[in-house]
Amino acid sequence: MTAEQYRTTRPGLLGAANVGQTVQVAGWVQTRRDHGGIVFVDLRDATGVLQIVLDPDAGTAPEEVLSGLRREFVISVTGEVASRGEEHVNPDLATGEIELVATELRVLSPSDPLPFQLDDRVDVDEGLRLQYRYLDLRRPAMAANLQARSTAIRAMRRVLDAQGFLEVETPTLVASTPEGARDVLVPSRLRQGHFYALPQSPQLFKQLLMISGVDRYYQIARCYRDEDFRADRQIEFTQLDLEGSFWGQDDVLEVLEEIAVAVTKDLRGIELARPFPRLTWQEAMDRFGTDKPDTRFGMEIQDLSDLFGSTEFKAFAGVLADGGTVRGINAGAQGLSRAGLDKLVEQALSLGARGLVWMVVEDDGSLRSPVAKFLSDAEQAGISEALAAAPGDLLLVVADRFSVVSKVLGALRIDMGQPEGHDEITFLMVTDFPMFEVGDDGSLAPMHHPFTSPEDVTEMVESPGSAASRAYDIVLNGAELGSGSVRIHNPDVQAKVFEVLGITAEDATRRFGWFMDALRYGTPPHAGFAYGIDRMVSILQDLPNIREVIPFPKTQTGNDPLTGSPSRVEDEQLGELGITVAADVVAGWAEEDA
Amino acid sequence: MTAEQYRTTRPGLLGAANVGQTVQVAGWVQTRRDHGGIVFVDLRDATGVLQIVLDPDAGTAPEEVLSGLRREFVISVTGEVASRGEEHVNPDLATGEIELVATELRVLSPSDPLPFQLDDRVDVDEGLRLQYRYLDLRRPAMAANLQARSTAIRAMRRVLDAQGFLEVETPTLVASTPEGARDVLVPSRLRQGHFYALPQSPQLFKQLLMISGVDRYYQIARCYRDEDFRADRQIEFTQLDLEGSFWGQDDVLEVLEEIAVAVTKDLRGIELARPFPRLTWQEAMDRFGTDKPDTRFGMEIQDLSDLFGSTEFKAFAGVLADGGTVRGINAGAQGLSRAGLDKLVEQALSLGARGLVWMVVEDDGSLRSPVAKFLSDAEQAGISEALAAAPGDLLLVVADRFSVVSKVLGALRIDMGQPEGHDEITFLMVTDFPMFEVGDDGSLAPMHHPFTSPEDVTEMVESPGSAASRAYDIVLNGAELGSGSVRIHNPDVQAKVFEVLGITAEDATRRFGWFMDALRYGTPPHAGFAYGIDRMVSILQDLPNIREVIPFPKTQTGNDPLTGSPSRVEDEQLGELGITVAADVVAGWAEEDA
Repeated sequence: MTAEQYRTTRPGLLGAANVGQTVQVAGWVQTRRDHGGIVFVDLRDATGVLQIVLDPDAGTAPEEVLSGLRREFVISVTGEVASRGEEHVNPDLATGEIELVATELRVLSPSDPLPFQLDDRVDVDEGLRLQYRYLDLRRPAMAANLQARSTAIRAMRRVLDAQGFLEVETPTLVASTPEGARDVLVPSRLRQGHFYALPQSPQLFKQLLMISGVDRYYQIARCYRDEDFRADRQIEFTQLDLEGSFWGQDDVLEVLEEIAVAVTKDLRGIELARPFPRLTWQEAMDRFGTDKPDTRFGMEIQDLSDLFGSTEFKAFAGVLADGGTVRGINAGAQGLSRAGLDKLVEQALSLGARGLVWMVVEDDGSLRSPVAKFLSDAEQAGISEALAAAPGDLLLVVADRFSVVSKVLGALRIDMGQPEGHDEITFLMVTDFPMFEVGDDGSLAPMHHPFTSPEDVTEMVESPGSAASRAYDIVLNGAELGSGSVRIHNPDVQAKVFEVLGITAEDATRRFGWFMDALRYGTPPHAGFAYGIDRMVSILQDLPNIREVIPFPKTQTGNDPLTGSPSRVEDEQLGELGITVAADVVAGWAEEDA
Repeated sequence: MTAEQYRTTRPGLLGAANVGQTVQVAGWVQTRRDHGGIVFVDLRDATGVLQIVLDPDAGTAPEEVLSGLRREFVISVTGEVASRGEEHVNPDLATGEIELVATELRVLSPSDPLPFQLDDRVDVDEGLRLQYRYLDLRRPAMAANLQARSTAIRAMRRVLDAQGFLEVETPTLVASTPEGARDVLVPSRLRQGHFYALPQSPQLFKQLLMISGVDRYYQIARCYRDEDFRADRQIEFTQLDLEGSFWGQDDVLEVLEEIAVAVTKDLRGIELARPFPRLTWQEAMDRFGTDKPDTRFGMEIQDLSDLFGSTEFKAFAGVLADGGTVRGINAGAQGLSRAGLDKLVEQALSLGARGLVWMVVEDDGSLRSPVAKFLSDAEQAGISEALAAAPGDLLLVVADRFSVVSKVLGALRIDMGQPEGHDEITFLMVTDFPMFEVGDDGSLAPMHHPFTSPEDVTEMVESPGSAASRAYDIVLNGAELGSGSVRIHNPDVQAKVFEVLGITAEDATRRFGWFMDALRYGTPPHAGFAYGIDRMVSILQDLPNIREVIPFPKTQTGNDPLTGSPSRVEDEQLGELGITVAADVVAGWAEEDA
């Protein structure tokens, strides 16, 4: 076999220093222009774009080849690097001072006409982009996203490798042990009627690694969640998973910061200041109404309850008497019409509030509001002072249970104040999360997962609804990038958590018995974290959704328009797995096929 | 929250230089010995082992704590590093010159009595080891295997990162497009009755990346094959997957060598000579009877056919007349009894041969053999010369079709000559594989996969049974570590390959239509490879099977004795997926449960 030679250098690597050299380059025809018989081609590969000059009389290739050259043809060109001359320099192009005067051209692959233009400025339907993802990825912005993702992961590894973390691969065909979201199930062929699950995270395996004596572990881990798709979720996603023994919260947060600093440096060229701000969960909720605050802008929530200790306004008085709270934000000068204000009220109602009080600050400092007449002058003055009101400002006040007030004001604050881009990169840590989430019916669910250590076991048992855990999150510009915790390393505490959650001992044994057993053989104290890579890269790339930084994502309904997955399979294959498609599903197919 | 402090340094990091320092260490109690009232504990963590001296009178911990200390308890100890004194130095221990005289001891976790001893010298049933994998991994040899795997992967990344390869993650929930082995299927919930497949390899996605303009790609990829388990296969496994555009075979082999050299250097401290030997497939088969030759020993196959052009021995004459071949090896002085020789004959028959001719070289150079009487003196002398026979040598000759002769002699050669350990590391490349494997019924199957480029399209169409492809393998000590090829980048050639394989155009469109479409939009010439990481690390660690280097492997029947997967799941969950377990499987459960 003779090896094919397609190139001796790359288009984007050439410059004025190469003038006079004979080189061979290969890539895609980005554009083709004819000027007075001469053909100019912009040749593109991953390094950049180079102008090729093709003189039909120079015998570089048969005329029909030159005249047939179209966009996205793959060609290999040999020629001499020449200076363009000052008047022809293209300052928009890194190689704009030179061009390649071709002596030989070979078409390596033709291209059909494209279904859409490969131009970052052209807006293309996402369905079409996903169907032709291999073309979409040729666009410079998408190529940059692929590169950014690789760069981010490399930065993570650099930090962790330098600290002696061991990279360990945990299995992806695991036992089904529901952690919250639905497991993705995989039927076993050798054991018919039995199922593996794809992991929601390597949580239990990384804890087993700690029990195994691995001191520091990390993995870039593929994880799976079968959720009803929301805008920003994928059935498979990637996280940086890490865990350490004899490790406490502060140690973990330190490493998380180092990772965030390294990734931001490599992707954005920004050196972030350390340490990152740290808020307790309570403080985050009080000031921002959310556990993932965006602190790039103010508009903080103020507690106004004290102003209304003896108010005549029944709506506020009733809430306070019931143990509720009255809080507000100053949304600034929004200049909303009455219709706009009504829309805000509707939004508050849809978020679960019983009402939203709006007040517009008049030029004389007085408050224009449907409820102004119920508020005393002192109350109005108190509100204005607490919210630092200035003429034109819109003040929004909610009276309700703490959780409702936080949810509504937190959401309104984001809607009215959050900056659009991500020019400013603001990381922060939220700590001391509650142990449990309390449902409307009083039921308890783990706020993180049931392997999170409580701050205090007695407190957890006696007042689970308010008990703190040793869990923490990292937040970037108002988005949660990941969460972690100090884990439970004592099997008795683990059993107690299951008990408080209302999981019977029998059920706990059935679902987690093997893990509870493992805890009995000398488990070191340990802690860890998981960083969502898709989200982190998409925010740092200033992109609206994670699909932009996933090479081959699925749609929100879990389909891949490129390959057509998921698809039907032969009955014979299912027979080998010991499963059948349910009769009503098969009945539904007739309709689908019609 | 106050951060817990468990350690200020690590047991294995201490030495004579630390004498006099007060330190805190944490880890597992490896052994505990009582000597004249003093308790000696060997404390272990991932860095090593340190002797701790506990004087019950020193108030380090309550007496019941000291007396209760057992193997694998997790403890944290503060104390002063002391010299052991010359007479007590333990030369077997890296920290053997010192000990830690404890002033404070805390038990962080107790341990139940162990199901087996954590000692590399103790042979434990593999089922038990897998059930308690977290204990098994504490054994020094297993901890070293985890470390070796991480080291190997890091070396691979170092080589590829330095050459500008982009790490890209391809999806793991893909379309089912059978590549040879059975797909692992995953039922979709949002599209009931439809299935994803887990990838057998990222083959088509990495080719899409080339079409996308990614110049050099790699990924440490999890792959899945639902095979009937053999000794050395897992349902999930890991490969280093790589691909490049405008790349030819020699470029790929160069990078593969660099990777092998880097990994071997980091794991074994050996600097391998380059370039590695390269054999064509034909040469490998001719000389060693296999496409994954172990060249650490001779015993090469010799073609004896020419000796028997006019033989009277009908068995040989018939084979040669039918286009077959007569070949032999000199197995050396094996000293086998008649029973031993009969066993060899049986083995040859079970491998598909019609017979095996053995000859033992007598002291006078004559051949003792059941067939000696059928062979002329010249033929016997010819055999002796061709096989360099010396007194005592065992010569083995097979007459059959080339494929059978190669299979039988190749297997006998390995059985009789292959060295046991892996002290010597011998990589080699095998190139120019045939395009297709021809079945006994004349049917064709791809030797690698149907995306492999033929050496010559006309040859492939006209004589597919003998046509060469542009595929290559890398072999280490007689094991195939991975394979690759120059790919097809021309959609017409791709269609032709499907045609030769007997895949109808309709079927090709159904299974690979989306990929054939992609080839039409400017596909660069490209080539690539996949390295089996499990196999590579296990051989370099001199281990008999890949399960030793997989943190949490499954048994040969795909079970995980640790977590009990695969397991049965709730009917409700299956209902959501639109599938049911087949009635006959459910019927079988009654028996299983009994």
